[in-house]
Amino acid sequence: MSLTLHYTPHTCALATHIVLEEAGAAYDLVRVDFKRTEQRSPAFLALNPKGRVPALVTNRGVLTETPALLAFVAQSYPKAKLAPLDDPFAFADVQAFNSYLCSTVHVAHAHGMRGYRWVDDPAAIAAMKRKVPESLSACYEPIEASFLKGPWVTGDSYSIADCYLFTIAQWLEDDGVDPKRFPRILEHRERVMERPAVKRALEQERLG
Amino acid sequence: MSLTLHYTPHTCALATHIVLEEAGAAYDLVRVDFKRTEQRSPAFLALNPKGRVPALVTNRGVLTETPALLAFVAQSYPKAKLAPLDDPFAFADVQAFNSYLCSTVHVAHAHGMRGYRWVDDPAAIAAMKRKVPESLSACYEPIEASFLKGPWVTGDSYSIADCYLFTIAQWLEDDGVDPKRFPRILEHRERVMERPAVKRALEQERLG
Repeated sequence: MSLTLHYTPHTCALATHIVLEEAGAAYDLVRVDFKRTEQRSPAFLALNPKGRVPALVTNRGVLTETPALLAFVAQSYPKAKLAPLDDPFAFADVQAFNSYLCSTVHVAHAHGMRGYRWVDDPAAIAAMKRKVPESLSACYEPIEASFLKGPWVTGDSYSIADCYLFTIAQWLEDDGVDPKRFPRILEHRERVMERPAVKRALEQERLG
Repeated sequence: MSLTLHYTPHTCALATHIVLEEAGAAYDLVRVDFKRTEQRSPAFLALNPKGRVPALVTNRGVLTETPALLAFVAQSYPKAKLAPLDDPFAFADVQAFNSYLCSTVHVAHAHGMRGYRWVDDPAAIAAMKRKVPESLSACYEPIEASFLKGPWVTGDSYSIADCYLFTIAQWLEDDGVDPKRFPRILEHRERVMERPAVKRALEQERLG
């Protein structure tokens, strides 16, 4: 299988990047430069009309959307045991966690930088930005209280959900969330950071 | 397997409801009354701390998040062939479509009614509401142009992605989107409406 991950550093594309490393997959990386708005270039839009990363080019076509990509890598490399593939309930539990990160946590974060998606008025964009620490903290509360079972998201088994939480939690301090309120999420972040696959993905992003 | 779907009419819970009908699953329905804010009641929050529908109570625990629930039902009732379960690429393609509906299309819709999630200022909430027809139309454009292959979302096979698009597209006119811009999505909506399972789910919602 030929795989090329189009990514931008410090975005949610890191989750797919980490999962590819964890799976032991052979893949290529292509950096998409947001500063030069390469995500809106005709070449990139031909790959992904949404103009967003991540996009994973395979020999069967292009796949997008982090929750779909994480499940795809887990299913394509079953020996890496990155998701409970043979148990629909447990798999759905992992997917529900990932969907929450994607559609609720990441969306709350996006109101800090990409408010123009949902409103035109500059004062309203500024008002959105101001609320991010509060709205994002509200999203993290149930993760801290119950969704994160510990030591890994689903309990004893490391999975794609851990790669995704680690990725999203990278932005916590920059978004003005008080890290003292989320000691379990921070401890989880440190635990994931110790994994060799995670270190490799971060180093590849840095060298870019 | 014991299954109870907690739903509210005219919400995205309809997608899971339809998929349960399509699967031929035995399940119970519990209506959550948003007008009485039952979704914030202690009893409901004990089931789903997010205070949202859908929530599917099973004998192994509660599952949430539409994309996760749709894949769960498809995997639990494989004979109904509601997703390409044996093909990780095709499954990821379905999941990517569902994730886009959840985290982009539904989120754009939510800015019309639930702007308070992301901003406090009433003027900003009103500004968000005003932009919904435009931002939601922008979300529907790539569906109309390419994601919806026809006659079904993925081409020749009806799947969970069709149930979800049908559900989200119920809100199109109420959100001020010009339906003339999206003839293929409307035609798809009519095609799905003809299915007996869909008619049964809608009738059950109506009778409540």
